[in-house]
Amino acid sequence: MGVVVQKYGGSSVSDAAAVKRVAQRIVRTVQAGNQVCVVVSAMGDTTDELLDLAEQITPTPPGRELDMLLTAGERISMAVLAMAIANLGHEARSFTGSQAGVITDSSHGRARIIDVTPGRIRTAMDEGAIAIVAGFQGVSQDTKDITTLGRGGSDTTAVALAAALDADVCEIYTDVDGVFTADPRIVHSARRLGAVTYEEMLELAASGAKILHLRCVEYARRYGIPVHVRSSFSDRPGTTVAGSIDDLPEADMEQAIIAGVAHDRSEAKITVVGVPDVPGKAAAIFNEVARAGVNIDMIVQNVSQAQTGLTDVSFTLPKTDGAMAMNVLQVAQSTIGFARLQYDDQIGKVSLVGAGMRSHPGVSATFFGALAEAGVNIDVISTSEIRISVVTHADKVDTAVRAVHTAFELDADQVEAVVYGGTGR
Amino acid sequence: MGVVVQKYGGSSVSDAAAVKRVAQRIVRTVQAGNQVCVVVSAMGDTTDELLDLAEQITPTPPGRELDMLLTAGERISMAVLAMAIANLGHEARSFTGSQAGVITDSSHGRARIIDVTPGRIRTAMDEGAIAIVAGFQGVSQDTKDITTLGRGGSDTTAVALAAALDADVCEIYTDVDGVFTADPRIVHSARRLGAVTYEEMLELAASGAKILHLRCVEYARRYGIPVHVRSSFSDRPGTTVAGSIDDLPEADMEQAIIAGVAHDRSEAKITVVGVPDVPGKAAAIFNEVARAGVNIDMIVQNVSQAQTGLTDVSFTLPKTDGAMAMNVLQVAQSTIGFARLQYDDQIGKVSLVGAGMRSHPGVSATFFGALAEAGVNIDVISTSEIRISVVTHADKVDTAVRAVHTAFELDADQVEAVVYGGTGR
Repeated sequence: MGVVVQKYGGSSVSDAAAVKRVAQRIVRTVQAGNQVCVVVSAMGDTTDELLDLAEQITPTPPGRELDMLLTAGERISMAVLAMAIANLGHEARSFTGSQAGVITDSSHGRARIIDVTPGRIRTAMDEGAIAIVAGFQGVSQDTKDITTLGRGGSDTTAVALAAALDADVCEIYTDVDGVFTADPRIVHSARRLGAVTYEEMLELAASGAKILHLRCVEYARRYGIPVHVRSSFSDRPGTTVAGSIDDLPEADMEQAIIAGVAHDRSEAKITVVGVPDVPGKAAAIFNEVARAGVNIDMIVQNVSQAQTGLTDVSFTLPKTDGAMAMNVLQVAQSTIGFARLQYDDQIGKVSLVGAGMRSHPGVSATFFGALAEAGVNIDVISTSEIRISVVTHADKVDTAVRAVHTAFELDADQVEAVVYGGTGR
Repeated sequence: MGVVVQKYGGSSVSDAAAVKRVAQRIVRTVQAGNQVCVVVSAMGDTTDELLDLAEQITPTPPGRELDMLLTAGERISMAVLAMAIANLGHEARSFTGSQAGVITDSSHGRARIIDVTPGRIRTAMDEGAIAIVAGFQGVSQDTKDITTLGRGGSDTTAVALAAALDADVCEIYTDVDGVFTADPRIVHSARRLGAVTYEEMLELAASGAKILHLRCVEYARRYGIPVHVRSSFSDRPGTTVAGSIDDLPEADMEQAIIAGVAHDRSEAKITVVGVPDVPGKAAAIFNEVARAGVNIDMIVQNVSQAQTGLTDVSFTLPKTDGAMAMNVLQVAQSTIGFARLQYDDQIGKVSLVGAGMRSHPGVSATFFGALAEAGVNIDVISTSEIRISVVTHADKVDTAVRAVHTAFELDADQVEAVVYGGTGR
């Protein structure tokens, strides 16, 4: 008998009818001879509605109370899902994050999982019941207060439970058929990837692919949990994320070189102009930004001009942190001694990801060639062993993604991507 | 420093504006030098909306899951109330029933409180925070599952916490100014009672007065907790419920004899016709009904007819249990040997309650005289030491209540009852 952990997102349980459909899928998994633990997100727009309610009360709700409020969303969805399963003649028991043993630190709104002690889940499953667990939430080890893991935390809950339960697979159900070679809204001929490695998935997630959260993939890699991303609206196979291509059930030779093209429009670029080119200046800049709690993505430093001894330093960061970073740098201007700051939030990042890059020369040449031919100006370049990323103007992102996708022969013969549902988030 | 427990019902926290108003009242209580623990119900119609959602899923939700679902309502209201208090510059911490130490049996939907261990509440209050507790819910001692106490359970939660915290007073906030001598919707000249004894309040609650639930009053009497029922929409004094008239702050000589007139339209009457008048037949009838879990209110047995040796037995019971009771009796007809059953759900009960009845002769005479003069036919009579109740036709209830209210000179000189709010239940 296998142990399967399934996670259903908000769009998969957007209303009573959707909940019933999910219940049928869960029951089929049980009838196929598995023990099943289900992680569920809040129904449809519930979380946004609860945030709206909080906003009507105060613009600055205490984190502890905001977490208490938001966790009501999963409490509702897990209870009605358990009811829908009961209605099909199977026993289901719902558990809060706390009851399921999801132990976190006490960082409200973005808690990290410290430990998972799923004693009650295991008991429920051993007694023949289906366990339904609230995603996105846990309980603080120190204060015993309710915490949330931040958005996307439900995926992480599912993978963490799969690890703690020694599950055979963690299935992440969503409203698309899996991971595609590019965002199908931009590239209509994007192909579904049958399989992708943790490494590639991490780079895709970090490069803006929204299908799985970085944290969840990191967790899966650390514990070696195979993750199957698929749609709750169809029975099509999805994408398996696992250790290496050899481990993958659906090996797919074309993707041996390139997994896909990701893009990200959520970043901005700050350029610090006229920085004295002496040791310690770059460190001073990034110290200031780090102290403000801002995560930096790409960094580029120009070659210093011989006459002036000055250089420019550019970096990208989430747009949401832009104002904060500009503030702290302006305050530090006289101490660091730069000339001025430039802020640009009309940028986009395009990334090519593939484990095969390591052993296939010429990937960069094809990549930059395709961009040049499409008339895409490149602003910043950054690479890892299995990824090349460029920053360009936001308007050029779609063109760049399509050009690269075609250049690497990733286009499918027919449209593979279907967008389901749409009542949810 | 006093310890005050306050309970706010759903109509007092029907929306964000109402929540903010309640927060101000709580902060004023703190500023007056009190430690405050607040019990809150679900906002406005939340509980009904959650019940509707469950009904869309299945007509027969498992009790465990229905409780899990419904407790989301108080989770939302307590978190936003804590936020609203924080917005006024005071610290508030919300706690689920489980976190507040409300330990119950495992009867889902109608759990009984077994114990209250408010360690976290006391710590929060000792650290200067206002404790906000979810009403209506607890955690099962045996299964550690979430339970609900049934509707009206929030009042009971408040009194139970007041007892456990050794509070000076338990304030129950609602949308009327207190307990009145009759339902102001029927008797416009009803007077607010400044004070009423536990005993009288128990009889009023059992007779249909909806202001406080029987359970809550029983709990308050057992632990000697003074309960102050008042409106969250005004600063008027309400009604204090306490041990005896001498304990009451606002002694009110007129009410020494009669506290008020209550009525109840929620009952039906079953008459078992042609029961052999031999020992054990009444017991057989009520055994059958009791085995079906039906609570009987009033019972009357006619004098047996000499010729036939047969008698009729009538009893009243909640309308909601009517079909069930008729069923079990029909099944037992041949065993018990009665002729037939009559069912009447067009009845109403009118009750006169007052501790002064004990020592004041002539109360019954005035009561029945008033009913006779008003042309009210009496069907069944039942009395306790401090109560007289009659059953009449449902259409005659308003007339009977008004006639009795006037006969005992309970009418106020001017209209005292104000109905506030109206957005809630």
